[in-house]
Formats: sequence, C-alpha cells, structure tokens
Amino acid sequence: MSQVSVRGFRAAGFDAEIKDNGRKDLALIASDTPCTWTGVFTTNIVQAACVVRNKSLLASGNDASAVIINSGNANAYTGEQGAQNDQQIADYVAATLNLPSEQVLTLSTGVIGLQLTMSQFEAGVPAVAEALTPDGWEDAASAIMTTDTFAKLASAERSAYRITGIAKGAGMIAPNMATMLSIIATDAVIAPEDLQTMLNAVAEKSFNRIVVDGDMSTNDTILLLANGASGISPDLEQFQADLQAVAIDLAQSIVRDGEGASKFVTINIVDANNAQEATTIARSIATSPLCKTAFHGADPNWGRIIAAAGYAGVPFDPARLSLWLMDSNGVDKFQLVGDGTPLDYDEPAAITLMQSSEWGFRLSLGQAGSQTATVWTCDLSHDYVTINGDYRT
Amino acid sequence: MSQVSVRGFRAAGFDAEIKDNGRKDLALIASDTPCTWTGVFTTNIVQAACVVRNKSLLASGNDASAVIINSGNANAYTGEQGAQNDQQIADYVAATLNLPSEQVLTLSTGVIGLQLTMSQFEAGVPAVAEALTPDGWEDAASAIMTTDTFAKLASAERSAYRITGIAKGAGMIAPNMATMLSIIATDAVIAPEDLQTMLNAVAEKSFNRIVVDGDMSTNDTILLLANGASGISPDLEQFQADLQAVAIDLAQSIVRDGEGASKFVTINIVDANNAQEATTIARSIATSPLCKTAFHGADPNWGRIIAAAGYAGVPFDPARLSLWLMDSNGVDKFQLVGDGTPLDYDEPAAITLMQSSEWGFRLSLGQAGSQTATVWTCDLSHDYVTINGDYRT
Repeated sequence: MSQVSVRGFRAAGFDAEIKDNGRKDLALIASDTPCTWTGVFTTNIVQAACVVRNKSLLASGNDASAVIINSGNANAYTGEQGAQNDQQIADYVAATLNLPSEQVLTLSTGVIGLQLTMSQFEAGVPAVAEALTPDGWEDAASAIMTTDTFAKLASAERSAYRITGIAKGAGMIAPNMATMLSIIATDAVIAPEDLQTMLNAVAEKSFNRIVVDGDMSTNDTILLLANGASGISPDLEQFQADLQAVAIDLAQSIVRDGEGASKFVTINIVDANNAQEATTIARSIATSPLCKTAFHGADPNWGRIIAAAGYAGVPFDPARLSLWLMDSNGVDKFQLVGDGTPLDYDEPAAITLMQSSEWGFRLSLGQAGSQTATVWTCDLSHDYVTINGDYRT
Repeated sequence: MSQVSVRGFRAAGFDAEIKDNGRKDLALIASDTPCTWTGVFTTNIVQAACVVRNKSLLASGNDASAVIINSGNANAYTGEQGAQNDQQIADYVAATLNLPSEQVLTLSTGVIGLQLTMSQFEAGVPAVAEALTPDGWEDAASAIMTTDTFAKLASAERSAYRITGIAKGAGMIAPNMATMLSIIATDAVIAPEDLQTMLNAVAEKSFNRIVVDGDMSTNDTILLLANGASGISPDLEQFQADLQAVAIDLAQSIVRDGEGASKFVTINIVDANNAQEATTIARSIATSPLCKTAFHGADPNWGRIIAAAGYAGVPFDPARLSLWLMDSNGVDKFQLVGDGTPLDYDEPAAITLMQSSEWGFRLSLGQAGSQTATVWTCDLSHDYVTINGDYRT
C-alpha cells in the first residue's frame, strides 16, 4: 500500500550500523508541533528500558513531538545502564530537534540483554533527523524491521484527517501483544482521554487478536500520536473505525509475515455465550503447535482443533460443536463436524484448499449466545525453526 | 532397561492391523486375580470414550483384572457409537478371559474423530490374550506406541514387591498430562485409597512435569493396578519412592522420545517463595517456541528464557534473577545472569555444551523462599514439524 503523508509529521530511516547487515536500523518520526498521545504496552513483567520510560512519560501527561526507534537491540534486561542509554538517546533527539527530552519517546527491538553502543546513536540521530521528510514513512517502516521480510505500512485518508501507521512483528507474536511495535500518527485533533479509550478498544480487536508463536516480548508497544495539524476534530466514531481498519491491516501484515509463515489462518468462534471465552478458545487453537503444524501440512486433522478447544480452560459441551473449513473470504466450504458428529466431507478438496495461502476454521460452540471472536494466525513451519534456531548467529 | 515380571500379571502385544504399518497395535495386561486400582485422567473437556468409561468404573469402586490398549485410533470425539465400541472391546476381553466386563479397563491412543473397526478387535482380542505371558511387558510397551520411536518400560524390584510400568508419549505432551498413556502394575498389597493418594503425588512430580509441545490430549491416562500377589503390604513410604522412580523414568523417556526431539533439557527454578509459581515459570519456559528453537539451535540466548519467565503470570523482581547453564548432571557450568545483571561467560564453550544431547538451565528467582520446581522438556526441531505436518498421511 502506498504511504499517505500526515500533515505536520515527517519520518525517516537510516543505517546507523546497529545491525551489521547493511540495512536501516534507526527510524525517527517527528511532528512539527507537540502531539497528544497514548500507548499500549507489554504486560510482560520483564520490561525494556523504553517501555518503562514511555509509561512514565504517559503517566506524567507530557505531550510528545518525536519517536526514535532502533532495531537490532531491544535494550531490555540491561539494568541501570540500559535506562541511562535510553534517556541518552532521547537527549540526542531532543538536542538535534530542539525539543524538551520529555517530548521524545523511544522504542527498541531486537536481542535481549545486550547494552547499546551509544556512539551509533550519537552519530545516527543527527543523520536520521537530516533525512526527515513527509514521505519518509516507508523508510521508517523498513528501519524498524528485525526478521520481518517486508515493511508494514497502512493508512486511512479522509478530507478531515489522515492516519498512517507502521509496524514490525515477525517472532514472539502472542496473545496480548508481542515483539510487536507499531506507531500510528494522525493530524486529527483528538483529546488524550479519547485517544486512550479508542486505542484500547482498537488494540483489543487488532494487535491483541494475532498469534504467531505465543511468546510475548519485553518491548511490545503501540503508540498513537495526534498533532492536530488538520485543525479538525473529527467524528470520533468514524475516526475509531478508520483507526481500527489501519490497526487490523498492520496486525494482519504481522501475521502474514510471521517467522517462517506460509499460511494466513483465520480462527472464528461463533455461537458463544461469552466473547472473552470465545477469544480464549480461538487463541488456544491458534497457539497449539499440533494445530499449527497441521496447518503447515495442509492436513484437515480437525481432531487437533477440537482437542485444543477442549484444553482452553473454558466450559462447553463437546456434543454441541460444529466446525467448518472456510475459504479466504470467510465463506464456509466444508463442514467437518456437525452437532458433535464427525461428517463425511471431500477430503482431497479440503486439502487442496488448505494448500493455498489463506483460509480458516469456523467453530460453533452451539451455545445459546451469539458472541463471537476472531483470531488471526499462521502455520508453524520448518523455516520458523531455522530462523529461531540461529537468530543471533 | 530389562523388564521385571510382576507376580500374577501377564502382558502381550499383537498386530491387530488397526495401524497399517505392520507394527503391533493391541496390548493386553491381565492379572490372575482382581486388583485394587486407580487412575489419573486428562483434564481436557473433550474426553475419549475410554476416559469416560474408566472414570465411571473408578467411581463405582470395581476391582480391575485387565487393561486392553489399542494404538492407531484414539476413539475420541466419536459420540455414542464410540462409547458402544469401547464397551464392546471390554466385552470381548471379558468373554475371552472369563471376567466381568466391569473389571476390564480400556485405553486408546491415535487419531481423533475416527470410528474403530470392531472386526479388528473381535479377532485381535483372542489373539493377544493367547500371547499373554509374564514376560510380555516389552511387547505390550511396543504395541501402545504411535509416533514413539522406542518402547518405554521401567521397573523397581524389592524382596517384598515388584513394580513394572509401560508408557507411550511422543506428541501432545503438555502441562497436566498429554497423549500420554501409562500403565503401572505391582504385586504389592495396597488399599485403594493409598493407591490414589500415592498416584496423585507421584504423577505431580513425574508425568505432570514434562512438556513436549504444550498440547494436551483427549486420552491421557495413568493407571496403577495392585493385585497383591506378593502377599505383602509394603512400607508405603518406600513403595511411593519406588513408584516415583518408575514414574520419573517413564516420564523422562517420553521427553527423550518427544516428536523430533534431539535434546533433553531440564528447567530448574530455585529460590522461590511458592512451589506452584515456580512450576508455572518452569512450564512457561519449557513451552515457549522461542526457547525451544534456541535449545534446538544450541543458542544460549538467555533473553528468551527471561522473557518467557516474565510472561508466566507470576510476580517476581527481574533485578533479582540469576541464571546458570547446567550440564547433564545438573551441575552449574556457566553463569549467564547474576542478580539481574548479564554476565560475561565463555559463549563458545556454552554453545558446545548445548550441542550435546542433555543439559539444562537453573533460574533463581532470588526470593527469600527456598521452594523449587523442575520440569523436563525437549527442543522444537525440524523433525517435529515434519512429523506433525503429515501425521495422518
């Protein structure tokens, strides 16, 4: 998707040699004027220096004017030195852009437990700042990649406002966020409390609905900044719908680019009494290594799906379950189970569908309620093992 | 390990052609006299016909005289027909051995959602019964294998009694039991209530401490039968210790033979305030795909271990953690983290250790308590993906 510039924002990516693969590894996003902003952060007990600092800045109610993001090193589990380095990066940006450093947010992604080399930032921050341009979103999206294979970018554009977001994912994508970073910027005028409410609701239906491997990282963060440069306070319902569309686009891109992923699989739970329980079941299926390897092998081995539902810790009646294999448009193509009974189906045709790159399962709990949940996931492949078996070397 | 006969028990394995690979798939264990017995069963909501029947027999307080086990078909999620077939198998055994069918326990393992072919049992049960012999434990252990690559057998022998157990595992080995079957027989005289207390305690420290892939099956069962043929009521503490040794041996065999496993990894949590919390952390590490692929790649990427501990849902202070890489004897060889600080260590030597087939990590939570927990697990390998990507075909 082509990038949409957001009024008053500039972005850039630069190779500061934090990664030694010759790729960009330092991104900067800057607003001409201070932004209202909010964030959603990892719930891992072990939190990177940037997560700790951003949460503290959010709590103190500061506006934000810039976000600096490095890939290649997570600056997580790096103690007091890591916290000082994180602050130092913000100071470099503040000095370069002539901002108070409390208006500079920091993000890091990469290997845990390694101290940053500050000379790379001392030289890199002025260089990336020099490259800032209203059309720099794609460069910024490239610079935050780790094992991602493509840059993730999504936008919504209305006469009243523009929204552009970037994201990175790849591994450690789990229930409740992951080594997942996303920065979303808008030129709409939005009050901080509305931003927070909307981001919470949107994250729950997008980034929190994706599973790559079930791991959850120390650095996961979504930031949402609004600089008001459009001068227009939008209809909040419409804005939230656009924000959600952007977030779902980014979140799905993360799954499509999951480490080693060759299939994009939708898990849809219906006829549930409770939406939270439906989500728990969907995540149990999406996280199960046996289900994910069957997805990889295009094996309609639905017993594994039923079994993964059964150990999710949610009560249901196995004799009321129905299960369908859906095509990429979410249309039911093969009914595998009906009211608890295994059904005959055209297995070769089902295998052919599962050999394509996108499809899904719909599981009806057969309960009286009409609650639903959808989770997006990918298969567990040989390449996942290869990528993560020697990530650092 | 060589098999130890247990007085008054006979065992056998037979190829009833339930699996089409020419291997044994029907095992029978029979006692000359009725046994006190107990069982521990899967907590999955979706339970195989045999699990439902065995639980009901246990609740009604019947003695047991025989256990019939088939591999190749789990007879799970097979509805009323599956329950009838399960009862029919017990009836075949009862008729063949001249027993009340309430004294016949049934077990199945294999694919979910497929009806059994009863003619295979009608012919197979008399045949396997004919093969019964006091030395048939190894044949029985072979007949219950699915993707297992070796038969699992362990024994303890005292002048007062003998204990012999068999087990099968391979995939779906998870927290709180798995596609894991184990049948343990003893000739000691033990009251049913003592059996139950001991089996619960022993399972918690053995079968419930292993993780292959984190999936939990519909069929997991451990059965413990005591026929009293030795005529001796043993010292219960000594008996429990022997039972635990047998159970740990079988459980560890399951991990060593995990689907695609090339490494046996011990996760040991120490200095915890709470043993249950320590177990939760150990399981979180043992289940993490990122940790398991790093194990596979012999990568001492300890950040993934710290991160997996951090999302276990258990409170601890990251700044108090210490972490060691242990050799196969549980001896600390490399300290990677000390009181929250990453330490320098001989990384090439650590990699060399991790390239061997057995080692572990010890994680100190640095809490005032002295509680500990140990979980055994294996790596996540290319072969796991291969095996489970086309298990049925």
